[in-house]
Amino acid sequence: MNKRLIFKIIGLILLIEAVFMLFPCFTALFCGEQDWKYFLITLLCCGAVGGGLFCIRIKNTSLYAKEGLFIVGIAWVIMSLAGAVPYFISGFIPDFWNALFESVSGFTTSGISVVADVESAGNGMLLWRSLTHWIGGMGVLVFMLAISPVVGGASMHLMRAEAPGPVTEKIRPRISETAKWLYAMYFVLTGVEVIALSIAGMSVFHAILISFGTLATGGFSFMNSSMAAATVIQQVIVEVFMVLAGINFSLYFLVVTGKVKKVLKDLELRWYLIILAAATCLISMNVIFSYQQFSTVGEAIHQSAFGVISCMTSTGFAAYNYNLWPGFSQVILLILMFVGGCAGSTGGGIKVSRFVLMFKSIRGRIRESVNPKGTYYVKYNGKLVSDPIIRTVSLYFMLILLITIFSMIIVSLEPGMDISTSLASVATALNNNGIELKNEVVAGFANYSWWSRLVFIIDMLIGRLEIFPITALAVCLFRPLGKRTAVFRKWTR
Amino acid sequence: MNKRLIFKIIGLILLIEAVFMLFPCFTALFCGEQDWKYFLITLLCCGAVGGGLFCIRIKNTSLYAKEGLFIVGIAWVIMSLAGAVPYFISGFIPDFWNALFESVSGFTTSGISVVADVESAGNGMLLWRSLTHWIGGMGVLVFMLAISPVVGGASMHLMRAEAPGPVTEKIRPRISETAKWLYAMYFVLTGVEVIALSIAGMSVFHAILISFGTLATGGFSFMNSSMAAATVIQQVIVEVFMVLAGINFSLYFLVVTGKVKKVLKDLELRWYLIILAAATCLISMNVIFSYQQFSTVGEAIHQSAFGVISCMTSTGFAAYNYNLWPGFSQVILLILMFVGGCAGSTGGGIKVSRFVLMFKSIRGRIRESVNPKGTYYVKYNGKLVSDPIIRTVSLYFMLILLITIFSMIIVSLEPGMDISTSLASVATALNNNGIELKNEVVAGFANYSWWSRLVFIIDMLIGRLEIFPITALAVCLFRPLGKRTAVFRKWTR
Repeated sequence: MNKRLIFKIIGLILLIEAVFMLFPCFTALFCGEQDWKYFLITLLCCGAVGGGLFCIRIKNTSLYAKEGLFIVGIAWVIMSLAGAVPYFISGFIPDFWNALFESVSGFTTSGISVVADVESAGNGMLLWRSLTHWIGGMGVLVFMLAISPVVGGASMHLMRAEAPGPVTEKIRPRISETAKWLYAMYFVLTGVEVIALSIAGMSVFHAILISFGTLATGGFSFMNSSMAAATVIQQVIVEVFMVLAGINFSLYFLVVTGKVKKVLKDLELRWYLIILAAATCLISMNVIFSYQQFSTVGEAIHQSAFGVISCMTSTGFAAYNYNLWPGFSQVILLILMFVGGCAGSTGGGIKVSRFVLMFKSIRGRIRESVNPKGTYYVKYNGKLVSDPIIRTVSLYFMLILLITIFSMIIVSLEPGMDISTSLASVATALNNNGIELKNEVVAGFANYSWWSRLVFIIDMLIGRLEIFPITALAVCLFRPLGKRTAVFRKWTR
Repeated sequence: MNKRLIFKIIGLILLIEAVFMLFPCFTALFCGEQDWKYFLITLLCCGAVGGGLFCIRIKNTSLYAKEGLFIVGIAWVIMSLAGAVPYFISGFIPDFWNALFESVSGFTTSGISVVADVESAGNGMLLWRSLTHWIGGMGVLVFMLAISPVVGGASMHLMRAEAPGPVTEKIRPRISETAKWLYAMYFVLTGVEVIALSIAGMSVFHAILISFGTLATGGFSFMNSSMAAATVIQQVIVEVFMVLAGINFSLYFLVVTGKVKKVLKDLELRWYLIILAAATCLISMNVIFSYQQFSTVGEAIHQSAFGVISCMTSTGFAAYNYNLWPGFSQVILLILMFVGGCAGSTGGGIKVSRFVLMFKSIRGRIRESVNPKGTYYVKYNGKLVSDPIIRTVSLYFMLILLITIFSMIIVSLEPGMDISTSLASVATALNNNGIELKNEVVAGFANYSWWSRLVFIIDMLIGRLEIFPITALAVCLFRPLGKRTAVFRKWTR
């Protein structure tokens, strides 16, 4: 392990976090809230520790892929811990597990909140919550790569470990340029949404909060009702930007450089739009015929579209109580949670491209079993897909399935839990979604026992970082504990 | 396609079914019930059609693997249709879909009954229901192979297509001998259970019914309460034989031939017993601490063991209303439904060996991704497992997942359905289980709309025949309809 480099990178990330914390600190100060002190204390600590670590001299900047995974895993855990401090020491969230939960939920862009009454929160706190979304959405290591040349040759491993999707594209020849482009695009889209929402009647500060939540596909709101209290026009603006946030950001680069034709031919984008449209149709029909609580057909379609988009992009804004919808709509929403957005977007879930690759490989394998003499290759966007990628994709599906099952088992120990609620709550955490489908009996995320909340915290990190960084972290931390008894091992070999 | 041979085999299967129908016919006659007429009419029709088809002269007895799959698929559909006729024409089940449902549920050993009041049914009908279990459990084509040399070289394809599990073993050098051995073992075990239950106080006729249901891992009972009204000793006997029915029948051959050591080393058997024991422990603890409705700890453990065994072996006898148990127990039961029994047993589900192979291949792939230079092979029972088998196993998991999801979507259109109930009802049909976990609102299998019952019928057949025969059938029947519009096809390629 290149320990010096690891410490240096962690230091840099703490420094970045300290800088970001200046915003809520100044906001609180400006609004006359007492919270500025807590932000100041935290950012000074982060700055001191981060600065100290950053001063470590490094000899070489090379990293193995394994180490890249480990760094991303540990960086996200430390970042989340630091981010939880202001919530905790200010008394905004008096329970430490809950403060950590809120912080992880923010950074991983899950948007599951343990704060029941956000409307009583100060502006500083609200800004920090939404800012964690924005930092986590595109990735803090990608940000680091955009501003600092410190890691040099190791950048690709870090980029690959943090960016979502089966393959990581370099849209520019150099990683740091790629990272800069991605953040520039992200920044511009956020700005455009802020302007649009402001024109639609939202205050600029609130527009910023919602835009951070939208572009990062996060879902923290400043309203207790999430987005239900917003006007229809504001909801439509959020819908549009949620769709945009769920698209691969490299495609925007292609649009900017004039290669629109290539964008329109992108397979993942096509399926993403087809699934969104199909799901909206199905749920609209279902709520129109079986639910009949909307006054007009237009309202039913609008609410269905909002639910579908919010679910599939993993944003998690709610403009309605989806628990009231009929079972069919809930099943579709649950499936959309797992589908998720496009690779290279800020959306969570398994990602559309992985599903497309899986379907193609299943089709190939069925053809192979019918006609054993033929060989079938998987083509994606006109290119052959190599066997290791297909295998990693199918491994990813299996692991998501296993993690879902194991999490369900643990979470179902909560009183009042049924199969639906345990599955849906694991789904919303693991896919960084934020929409809660639950029965009326269970207490909700803030009141679950510590072990369930720990499972959700781990699931959110696993979901955002796509399993492998957290696995690498767990392997390094728990290797000494991992030795099974020899008898059982031999018996089941 | 070797059409002549296909027709001949179908004819033979109808003849076998006609012969089996003699038993309920005589039983009804003997008990003075009117049902004997309906059985006689059906068996004469089956016999006539079957006899006619059987007289077809065949030129060659060779079959492709594809045709083997097709034959098994079509044979099961025809057999189920013929088996539904007595239920329907006698007015025992006045709705044709329900009669077909009951017949498919019988032959596939699912044991989901649409008959609310079985206690009012005649003995002839009860025997036919349980007999369909017994025929379907070991497989009607395996029975055919045991008695008739007609298909010659094609037998292995048929055996492979009907027998459950990732690999089909030949315990004797000749297929017909293997089939004879399997049926002999099946017959002996059934006989032993009949004797045991009779000694425990059950009438011989009822003992036969329950034994058919147990050894085939079916689950049809002659009591409205399934097995809840039986005595504890009878329940324990059924428990023991359910466990035996879920074990690979080739292992009994090894026991008989004195190779007990090899049996004890069998990996699938070990995991099967470990999972049974672990699940029983977990559910016992859960019901003791969270449910607290059992008067003694012993009763809690006994009921937990019965539920676990009935669920995992896919028998579906219920000695308790499992819907009252806490969420944790229900989640475990749901997972056990998918795990299923051992390959080569009469149990349903995905099978323990497929899970073991999947875990081993996942472990290997993770090791490979950590250490890309090493190559990892999967070993099973001391032998290397070839790559095509691993790929078929992982394909199988993916297909089960997809079928579950699609079935859930359709079934959730029923009024009152929620995520739990749609998932659990698809799980119970697809895994040929029979235990119903549902909310209080939905109507139950007998009252679902025709499309849901059609989905369940298809799922039961898919589950029993392990996907591929039904796929082969569907491909042959629906190929002309399968042409997508060229625009969509091109757009999503």
